[in-house]
Amino acid sequence: MKKKNLALGVDVGGTNLKCAIINEAGKVLLLRKAQTEVEKGRSQILSNIKSLVHACLKEKRLSAGDLAGIGLGTPGYVVDGVILGSPNMPGWHGTPIVETMSREFAAPFFASNDVTLAALAEYRYGQDAAVRNMVMYAIGTGIGGGIIVDGRVYEGSFGMAGEMGHVIVAAGGRLCGCGVRGCVEAYASATAIKNMARELLEKPEGPKSLIHRAVKGEPDKVTSKIVYDAAKAGDAAALEINEVVCRHLAVAVSGSISIFNPELIVLGGGVMQAGDIIMNRVREYLPKFTLADPLSRCRLDYAKLGEDAGVIGAAALAFQMTSRIP
Amino acid sequence: MKKKNLALGVDVGGTNLKCAIINEAGKVLLLRKAQTEVEKGRSQILSNIKSLVHACLKEKRLSAGDLAGIGLGTPGYVVDGVILGSPNMPGWHGTPIVETMSREFAAPFFASNDVTLAALAEYRYGQDAAVRNMVMYAIGTGIGGGIIVDGRVYEGSFGMAGEMGHVIVAAGGRLCGCGVRGCVEAYASATAIKNMARELLEKPEGPKSLIHRAVKGEPDKVTSKIVYDAAKAGDAAALEINEVVCRHLAVAVSGSISIFNPELIVLGGGVMQAGDIIMNRVREYLPKFTLADPLSRCRLDYAKLGEDAGVIGAAALAFQMTSRIP
Repeated sequence: MKKKNLALGVDVGGTNLKCAIINEAGKVLLLRKAQTEVEKGRSQILSNIKSLVHACLKEKRLSAGDLAGIGLGTPGYVVDGVILGSPNMPGWHGTPIVETMSREFAAPFFASNDVTLAALAEYRYGQDAAVRNMVMYAIGTGIGGGIIVDGRVYEGSFGMAGEMGHVIVAAGGRLCGCGVRGCVEAYASATAIKNMARELLEKPEGPKSLIHRAVKGEPDKVTSKIVYDAAKAGDAAALEINEVVCRHLAVAVSGSISIFNPELIVLGGGVMQAGDIIMNRVREYLPKFTLADPLSRCRLDYAKLGEDAGVIGAAALAFQMTSRIP
Repeated sequence: MKKKNLALGVDVGGTNLKCAIINEAGKVLLLRKAQTEVEKGRSQILSNIKSLVHACLKEKRLSAGDLAGIGLGTPGYVVDGVILGSPNMPGWHGTPIVETMSREFAAPFFASNDVTLAALAEYRYGQDAAVRNMVMYAIGTGIGGGIIVDGRVYEGSFGMAGEMGHVIVAAGGRLCGCGVRGCVEAYASATAIKNMARELLEKPEGPKSLIHRAVKGEPDKVTSKIVYDAAKAGDAAALEINEVVCRHLAVAVSGSISIFNPELIVLGGGVMQAGDIIMNRVREYLPKFTLADPLSRCRLDYAKLGEDAGVIGAAALAFQMTSRIP
């Protein structure tokens, strides 16, 4: 049988669907978007995915049988082919995604958590050096994680592994969206940064910061970008928030270093667009929290593929699952 | 070639060497001990290991060539066949163990961290249920860890993985032996329990506890066993220490659940001889710190093989490394 050197990936987001066709070198041959239409419920989402995939295949004059496989990344977990726990997409929970899509397309179909797949893309196509073990933190509205062990995605016993955002960094501390207190997501996500800035803005006393000026008296308008613009301009209050972010992020990363002894940890997601003001401070904090030996052998770097990592990783999953070579 | 269904394991401890010959079912056919004689330096330790292995082979009328392989567990890390970072065994650091032993014995030779190998033994022979992913905490003088991923030991990129004792559970908190503040080892190891009890004994004020009575005015005599005997008798001060132990242990274990989504986490080591007073309290604390979904699918249980897990796991490593089937 001729080796099939194209794969198709789908990334299911709360707002948009993305579909990409890539080759084994990770080159994106086609990338198209459509609306997810979460509010219209499960069957509409599935129908939108199918239409988008069919349209992409048609545009490249391919049939599903020409592909090594199709991979799909989604918020939540994929357990035995069924999507679980995607809190921001009601109706999506319980979708038998593998069965449904396997019936539609004559290609091997695989699905996994979106951040896990972003990590796979970073591992295979984003980073220069050859590494075997890698952990990724995707720092956006929440904090997701992806784990690569010996060159393959590690999904855990039930597809729920890599919840790096819910590792405790301050037991009993700030309340996280998951209901637990002290998760790193409650200190270093865009949501956490916004919440900390809002608390600052709502304090009646104290000197005013650049953040106050930017939101013009409307604390709800604060974003992590506003906070980081202020921090980069030297604003003391914003820099204080950055200290909280970086210190807790360093505690979380230190745990990954002690546990995985990886060659590489990558930080990605929207918050990391702030850049070195976070990265350098996390690097400075790490020795305070981490065993020297594994720290000295681990590189901390940016995710390189940006917001398309998820859809590229989805296609990469199809390559991984249909190939003997990782 | 005939399949070789015996393997030999060596466990190098600070005081004793152990050597065992096991079959693939994990049955121990022979177990012998000798002194490590750490104080006499590297060549004496190596010579003691060789003598013990030769004696065991002779006793069972075997030659090294009859074995699937020889495995060795040691404190510290094994990086490219060389032992690194075993702080309590000066002179052992830097030993090219794989080369040395491969020259002595005509069998495939493998070496790894002792707790990693204890985890392998628990995984293969200690637990009833079939699991794929497991994390072990060995809670003794320090806290070691071992990680099983898809049925095989996970050693990390440089053999240093599984440092579960040095995961931060209280950033900036109690000083750990590694020099970092806030590691779980600084809260839940025998050393930590002793230190916390000693601090209590040295406080001039406050009511006297059963711990005071047991050490008869000599705080240096306190042990974790004394503390747990007092806790089981209902002593308030000892129970307070147990709360600190269990709360921080639960924070550490919660991280492993969020990260690995394993079927099983096992707690072993001398401190766990205290039993349910620790285990039950850790179980009670876990929901406070852990995502509900992966928690509900993870069992927390005792290590079953006791102090011979290390030497059994060393032999099991030889089976793992010389077999295609994990």
